[in-house]
Amino acid sequence: MFLSGLVTQLDTYLLNGRRGPLFFGGQNCLMARKKKNNTRVKVMMLGGLNEIGKNLAVIECENDIIMVDCGLGFPDDDMLGVDLVIPDTTYLEKNCDRIRGLFLTHGHEDHIGAIPYVLRKLDIPIYGTRLTLGIIENKLMEHQLPYEPELNCVTAGETVKAGCFSVEFIRVNHSIADACCLAIKTPAGTIVHTGDFKLDLTPIEGEIMNLTRLGQLGEEGVLLLMCESTNAERPGYTPSEKKVGQSLDNIFMQKSDKRIVIATFSSNVHRVQQIINTSAQYGRKVAITGRSMMNIIGAATRLGYMSVPDGVLIDISEIKKYPPNQITLITTGSQGEPMSALYRMAFRSHDKVQLGSEDLVVISASAIPGNEKMVDKIINELLKNGADVFKNDNFEVHVSGHACQEEIKLMLALTKPKYFMPIHGEYKHLNANKKNAVDMGIPESNVFISEIGKVLEVCEDYARFNGNVEAGRVLIDGYGIGDIGNIVLRDRRHLSQDGLMVIVASVDLAYRMLISGPEVVSRGFVYVREAEELMDQAKEIAKNAIEECFDRGIDERSEIKNSVKNALSRYILQTTGRKPMILPIIMDV
Amino acid sequence: MFLSGLVTQLDTYLLNGRRGPLFFGGQNCLMARKKKNNTRVKVMMLGGLNEIGKNLAVIECENDIIMVDCGLGFPDDDMLGVDLVIPDTTYLEKNCDRIRGLFLTHGHEDHIGAIPYVLRKLDIPIYGTRLTLGIIENKLMEHQLPYEPELNCVTAGETVKAGCFSVEFIRVNHSIADACCLAIKTPAGTIVHTGDFKLDLTPIEGEIMNLTRLGQLGEEGVLLLMCESTNAERPGYTPSEKKVGQSLDNIFMQKSDKRIVIATFSSNVHRVQQIINTSAQYGRKVAITGRSMMNIIGAATRLGYMSVPDGVLIDISEIKKYPPNQITLITTGSQGEPMSALYRMAFRSHDKVQLGSEDLVVISASAIPGNEKMVDKIINELLKNGADVFKNDNFEVHVSGHACQEEIKLMLALTKPKYFMPIHGEYKHLNANKKNAVDMGIPESNVFISEIGKVLEVCEDYARFNGNVEAGRVLIDGYGIGDIGNIVLRDRRHLSQDGLMVIVASVDLAYRMLISGPEVVSRGFVYVREAEELMDQAKEIAKNAIEECFDRGIDERSEIKNSVKNALSRYILQTTGRKPMILPIIMDV
Repeated sequence: MFLSGLVTQLDTYLLNGRRGPLFFGGQNCLMARKKKNNTRVKVMMLGGLNEIGKNLAVIECENDIIMVDCGLGFPDDDMLGVDLVIPDTTYLEKNCDRIRGLFLTHGHEDHIGAIPYVLRKLDIPIYGTRLTLGIIENKLMEHQLPYEPELNCVTAGETVKAGCFSVEFIRVNHSIADACCLAIKTPAGTIVHTGDFKLDLTPIEGEIMNLTRLGQLGEEGVLLLMCESTNAERPGYTPSEKKVGQSLDNIFMQKSDKRIVIATFSSNVHRVQQIINTSAQYGRKVAITGRSMMNIIGAATRLGYMSVPDGVLIDISEIKKYPPNQITLITTGSQGEPMSALYRMAFRSHDKVQLGSEDLVVISASAIPGNEKMVDKIINELLKNGADVFKNDNFEVHVSGHACQEEIKLMLALTKPKYFMPIHGEYKHLNANKKNAVDMGIPESNVFISEIGKVLEVCEDYARFNGNVEAGRVLIDGYGIGDIGNIVLRDRRHLSQDGLMVIVASVDLAYRMLISGPEVVSRGFVYVREAEELMDQAKEIAKNAIEECFDRGIDERSEIKNSVKNALSRYILQTTGRKPMILPIIMDV
Repeated sequence: MFLSGLVTQLDTYLLNGRRGPLFFGGQNCLMARKKKNNTRVKVMMLGGLNEIGKNLAVIECENDIIMVDCGLGFPDDDMLGVDLVIPDTTYLEKNCDRIRGLFLTHGHEDHIGAIPYVLRKLDIPIYGTRLTLGIIENKLMEHQLPYEPELNCVTAGETVKAGCFSVEFIRVNHSIADACCLAIKTPAGTIVHTGDFKLDLTPIEGEIMNLTRLGQLGEEGVLLLMCESTNAERPGYTPSEKKVGQSLDNIFMQKSDKRIVIATFSSNVHRVQQIINTSAQYGRKVAITGRSMMNIIGAATRLGYMSVPDGVLIDISEIKKYPPNQITLITTGSQGEPMSALYRMAFRSHDKVQLGSEDLVVISASAIPGNEKMVDKIINELLKNGADVFKNDNFEVHVSGHACQEEIKLMLALTKPKYFMPIHGEYKHLNANKKNAVDMGIPESNVFISEIGKVLEVCEDYARFNGNVEAGRVLIDGYGIGDIGNIVLRDRRHLSQDGLMVIVASVDLAYRMLISGPEVVSRGFVYVREAEELMDQAKEIAKNAIEECFDRGIDERSEIKNSVKNALSRYILQTTGRKPMILPIIMDV
């Protein structure tokens, strides 16, 4: 059996034209002598496939379940009015008593943001590194839970037992400090979940991704590699975070006459550290603006992930005491968010700072797809006000936190997995990541592009899709969790396009008489003051429709409503070319 | 005066560190002997500044006005339900009798798309090249005007007299055939309006941009250069359209086993020509899908701008008669437009073609900012269905139609303008274009970044902003031109975020009695079937509010309505965290 498997793999290898190294599926010949392991492990994603964000992996073996990450996503353009999106966790709720823990790879919103919502229904122990838990504690303070969740602090290198699983936290580099990948030993074999990672050979603080340990795991045999796909389309390597430091140094040297304002992701603790260091080096004071930036810097400093030289940090209200060219401002708003500190400073609605010709604004981030126009809106305004703007296209003031193709191949080369599952990304990312694995010699049949809720069953002999569990998206709007569905969204889209027209009439159904009205109220349709004729005509048409119903002996409200709606829709489409939502209300007095 | 001007310019030149060539402001020493010309020309843009699209320039001298281009723009994300945006032409309507003509640089929508709307109010002669007019004729057939507009066909090289102006059409290259820039001789001096242009030394058909004529104009003296700014941020030169042909050739050679589906802009006649040529060369039949693609290919072929080898074009219903690898499909949808042919073929709702594993899809276009996510949606779906997808990032299947920095500098070097006005773009583009001019030695004080409606007064001695004319945007929604204003848009945004709740009650105001209701109808707010308690509570609150009014002796409808609205808003915000639009309707029976 083992030999025939080997032969098949050799065949595939030969067919593949010897492009990649030959793997023996994470098993080596010594293992052929071991007793056959028939245990199966089930792997399913409840989020993070065919979408960006809301990452949540579920791993199930024997009677135990563990979760990896529990993130939120941002609404698509057609999810009007929705604040956030979280994974549907019905399956986990039904199997709550079997869950042995939630393991967190790092503290980004797309990996931890759903925790406050999911924890309302699942009281489970949480494991994560110190910074990750520090960020979660901040979040949980804002969402009052009816109980005190169990947060367990783990250091990279440590292993946690959880039912039949043991989960080892292994250092990786990423755009947030204290990020780990996970080696999950299961009765069926070892699963490596990369979390989000990059290889940074010159990290700002902390260690280089633990290549040695990943290599050891590869030697011992990895059954399945679940690998992030964010940059899987991009060739080469992601540059080191230190590259940004060099660019900053150049900028601070050249622009010694300007106040320097730098917008970046608040969670990028190392980026913020570099900005503070460079500022200190050039004798500048640093002020911070933006709520999330203040929060994270507070937490990171308290926990020892950032060190600020004495006397460098000042309150934003003090900046007027110094000449502009002795000030650095670190701000949120790098994604163009309306009402972010950068937006308000650009559009002159910030209470402390207005940006103008004495400022150089550095956008130390790249726009997340969909945010380009919002970022450009701020840039245009800054330039109009006379500020200089440096963006990443020309000044290398940002590097990604995600592995490019060569780093993903390095992960594959070290862990030598038998099976490969690309995670975290839209289909195009997953598909590109599949190609990375195939390039490295993994047979195409051993690569599984899954979907949320789809169960991948893996064991020593085979891996295959086998069934589905409930999965989907839960929309958060205001206090409501999951009470917004397709009907509400469809109505919002309809209302957003052509507005609405309400027609109200009081009738006496028993005597089939119109008592009062119809009255017409419209919003978002036409400017009513300039459309009196249209409104009068609409009333007339509604009146005729109602009276016609009565003449025909109809006394059912729903029928009258339909008749009014049809008559009005037709008239309005003909005269205006629009299709407002038409809401007839017939009151029986 | 002239000499002191020269000295100032020399100073500026020396201060600028001799980076650019030295210009003498478009005047040479011979001219100093000429009689002083005191005539002033006014230049204003009614669209195309601080925005993409709706390009419209107005040039006014003595009693005459001419217009250059008359384009449409696409609505911003916050203009919900709006179909198109056109310039506010109030100023032109008021001065209709002084307009001597509308001169068109080329046939793209952002340069001609507003014509059918503007022509309803302005009956003016139109001048353009043959393809441009051909496209307009197609458009005018769809919009029935009450009169037959005067369309005058001009060939590149010809000059048109229009009042005190004479307008010369000069060949440029662009991503549509038959594009021109304009040299406008005015009593105050010569204005060059670049239209949209690039330099293509190996154009697919037609001539290279007429560098010689532009150079002659420069020798004669150019007062003002109005220069497009689309690619002003990009260094270097835009590659030739022929580059795409080479990429296509490679792709057709390598992918001889696939049906090849190419999505591109329908107006890019030369691109389509290249696709047809390459297909013919590789023995493929070509089918076309998408309405605008059919229209433009029809017009371009009829007018002789495209030549299709005999027997190559087939109807899309015939493609089943050939093996897939002998077929090329040319389609619309390169911007990810929902309901475009590519979208429907990807999502399997096209009646003739479904795309899958036998297809290679080439996106021969770049995404216009804001369209990235829509394009990705199609790409993800195509990949899921097993199709290969080639995009511009990796396969050089698209080149821009706009001049990059070196081409803009070439335009400046040839025309040697005294004054410079960047046009066509957001502020960041205009600002980058200003830098191009300054790099070429034009004094910063001679560069004018304007705004729509702002009047630039130009004469031999000076140029300065002087006043404003009415300008803005007119929104088109359905048949309505300009009847959508800020109030309607604000209501649509409100409705799109949290939906609405209508509360209707019949009352007897004279007796201050509630007769019937209140009834509550909501849309886009919550899923009503799961929110019965909320709805019942809302009715109760409305009822109490009405009765409380009556108890307090209030019998004014508006006061009762306000009272209901306030009570309900408070309750709903507290319970749901949402702010639906609340519409109370009180009927006096």
